[in-house]
Amino acid sequence: MFKKILIANRGEIALRVIRTCREMGIKTVAVYSTADAESLHVRFADEAVCIGPPPSNLSYLKISSIIAAAEITNADAIHPGYGFLSENSKFSKICQEHNIKFIGASPDMIDKMGDKASARATMMAAGVPCIPGSDGILKDFEECSRFAKEMGFPVMLKATAGGGGKGMRAVLKEENLRNAWDSARQEASAAFGNDGMYMEKLILEPRHIEIQIIGDSTGKACHLSERDCSIQRRHQKLTEETPSPFMTDRLRKQMGDAAVKAAEYIKYEGAGTVEFLVDKHRNFYFMEMNTRIQVEHPITEQVIDYDLIREQILVAAGVPISGKNYFPQLHSIECRINAEDPYHDFRPSPGKITNLHAPGGHGVRIDTHVYSGYSIPPNYDSMIAKLITTAQSREEAINKMKRALDEFVIEGVKTTIPFHRQLMDHPDYIDGNYTTKFMESWKMNPIKAE
Amino acid sequence: MFKKILIANRGEIALRVIRTCREMGIKTVAVYSTADAESLHVRFADEAVCIGPPPSNLSYLKISSIIAAAEITNADAIHPGYGFLSENSKFSKICQEHNIKFIGASPDMIDKMGDKASARATMMAAGVPCIPGSDGILKDFEECSRFAKEMGFPVMLKATAGGGGKGMRAVLKEENLRNAWDSARQEASAAFGNDGMYMEKLILEPRHIEIQIIGDSTGKACHLSERDCSIQRRHQKLTEETPSPFMTDRLRKQMGDAAVKAAEYIKYEGAGTVEFLVDKHRNFYFMEMNTRIQVEHPITEQVIDYDLIREQILVAAGVPISGKNYFPQLHSIECRINAEDPYHDFRPSPGKITNLHAPGGHGVRIDTHVYSGYSIPPNYDSMIAKLITTAQSREEAINKMKRALDEFVIEGVKTTIPFHRQLMDHPDYIDGNYTTKFMESWKMNPIKAE
Repeated sequence: MFKKILIANRGEIALRVIRTCREMGIKTVAVYSTADAESLHVRFADEAVCIGPPPSNLSYLKISSIIAAAEITNADAIHPGYGFLSENSKFSKICQEHNIKFIGASPDMIDKMGDKASARATMMAAGVPCIPGSDGILKDFEECSRFAKEMGFPVMLKATAGGGGKGMRAVLKEENLRNAWDSARQEASAAFGNDGMYMEKLILEPRHIEIQIIGDSTGKACHLSERDCSIQRRHQKLTEETPSPFMTDRLRKQMGDAAVKAAEYIKYEGAGTVEFLVDKHRNFYFMEMNTRIQVEHPITEQVIDYDLIREQILVAAGVPISGKNYFPQLHSIECRINAEDPYHDFRPSPGKITNLHAPGGHGVRIDTHVYSGYSIPPNYDSMIAKLITTAQSREEAINKMKRALDEFVIEGVKTTIPFHRQLMDHPDYIDGNYTTKFMESWKMNPIKAE
Repeated sequence: MFKKILIANRGEIALRVIRTCREMGIKTVAVYSTADAESLHVRFADEAVCIGPPPSNLSYLKISSIIAAAEITNADAIHPGYGFLSENSKFSKICQEHNIKFIGASPDMIDKMGDKASARATMMAAGVPCIPGSDGILKDFEECSRFAKEMGFPVMLKATAGGGGKGMRAVLKEENLRNAWDSARQEASAAFGNDGMYMEKLILEPRHIEIQIIGDSTGKACHLSERDCSIQRRHQKLTEETPSPFMTDRLRKQMGDAAVKAAEYIKYEGAGTVEFLVDKHRNFYFMEMNTRIQVEHPITEQVIDYDLIREQILVAAGVPISGKNYFPQLHSIECRINAEDPYHDFRPSPGKITNLHAPGGHGVRIDTHVYSGYSIPPNYDSMIAKLITTAQSREEAINKMKRALDEFVIEGVKTTIPFHRQLMDHPDYIDGNYTTKFMESWKMNPIKAE
């Protein structure tokens, strides 16, 4: 087993990994930017190394500084969390070269799944249903146009290097195709230095349902059922739940089998997530695979009594998985508490938390790196806490979330707590009747006078 | 279902009940003494009524004020929590007379189980193993002396109205019997206004293991397995866990069956706990029955995914129980965080909490009514929080407790956190090798220099 793990991340996920390491008796090294000196991940690690100032390319993305920190502190493994370097094949490779175990996917695997066109081709070869589309990068606009007409509108143009909605265009009619092609390529080129585009059939009003999988070094994989992440705003997930209210036993078996087939086909090692779009007829299509831990992993942990970070570490250390699939025994919901003002288009609200009181009690879990007196730096992601409730039924989990949100006090900054509180009262949410388009028609109710 | 429940209690248990009521859509009324105006149970209830100043006989024990509060607010039920009026048959009766449902035992049941001699006689009649002893109150010292000689020393003298260790004397040798008799009677008379004494065989170095039961109005009962509460100081529990490390499947079946037999024999309605002493040969003996929710109930909830307060409310509303017994699927430990100084004989440390940061994350539950800036009044029980960790194995639950205790920041007052942290490292605790005598030889290690 590893003796010391460096966590190449910040915020709640860094603390999340540190907690499990402590429980496993593994020493931890935090790295931090000068903007994060007061974060709890720095406080609770056994050692902490400052790796530079913000922005992230001078610290959390600076591979040389992170490797140096690992070498100075004698860390024998690095956990990358999510975001930052977690899906950077170069980083995974450099860790390998320095004889430091990267707790994540191999460089090859990251490359294979990171490039969307190659991921799609791999999944088709594995027999996993994919959205009908081009078998790779479109050569030019002519090919694009021919393809769109063959497949029929609406279609989706996607940058092969894309992410977070950048370089993506939904095209409903032929006459809009040229503009979409030009602007998406420009955007992709600016954002990723790569203007390669591919095309998919546009699935209207889909659900975003993902399957958590874990594979080991023997090539064996299992799945841990699904998470429904359809409540998204501009491709950013806001609330997730498991089981999906749209799920059936039959669909879970089909999607679970497909995800395991995908993982075993590529001999995937570690925790990963296979994201699918599901249409209203319960056809499902491979969207992408994330070769890292996800923000929303706790809801899976809650319904199967499993510690995913622990399993990641065990698998990375060569321990084989049990090989059985896991099915939800309970219902769990996660609300991402962001320092954003939901009454003003979710604009970021960094600043000092002057008072914080977290809810507690039966079925409530909080993952957060912030505390009363903490100043949220403006440099990073606005998520400051994850509030997770778990109960025997979806209805109870929603009711528990309501009371937990009502108890949650965060003063000094605006947060998404009022958004989640209203969401939990929304008839379509209560009915489980929502798709990825849900937020497009969202409007906050006015602030109630106290 | 009830429309509005008044919680005749304070602190964490009042908040605990309020939380479940909110989740069930039941309105709540808090009552509070002037010393508790700033407590969270007041803040999170729908309504709050001040019922007088401390001490408790002017507020939390003042039946007329509580009934008046229920009538003013139109509450149709009262949850008494633990302590205070939770096992007061007069209160239960007055609630009945006022047409307010008492969420607890009937007056008769409380009387039957509250008087220790009568409880023992009832249990013997039900066929539940009892500690060999007098079949009721000892007439005089002569009977006491004859009985002790017949049974053989060591023996235990107990006040029939006793509790919290008052009016109890362990007598190891005949020559000490007279003194013990006189002083225990005096103490009982002063404490309870009742000097009735009975005698039991003294079980040396027993374990305190209790079985959670729940019964409904049809006379049916089931058990929810055990809690090991052997870590006690002066009969006050400090740490509890389930399953008991001393438990075997066979013993659990025997004790569970006995507890259900006891509950069904007396047609027990509601949640209750049958406390047993277990000797080193795994013989078990009925000690007492608590006709209320226990402080340590969360560990049971954690290992069977059950909300005991919810079930109490449902049963009180006439909903029948499922009738199946529940067995622990996980391991859970509770540490009672008291405002006491473990380095100075656990002396109370009331005062203002200047800073509070609670641990969180996977497998951690906190039940507390306090917050940063809260002043702990000197008038009540010193417990300020319950920290509960749950994991797949005992070892993991202990490791999780260690890291959670390490993360727990409470400044401004002394707490039992350092005691629990040392306990989790104690070889006998780690081995599960402890009895109710464990704390008699406890010594804190000195405070580490930082």
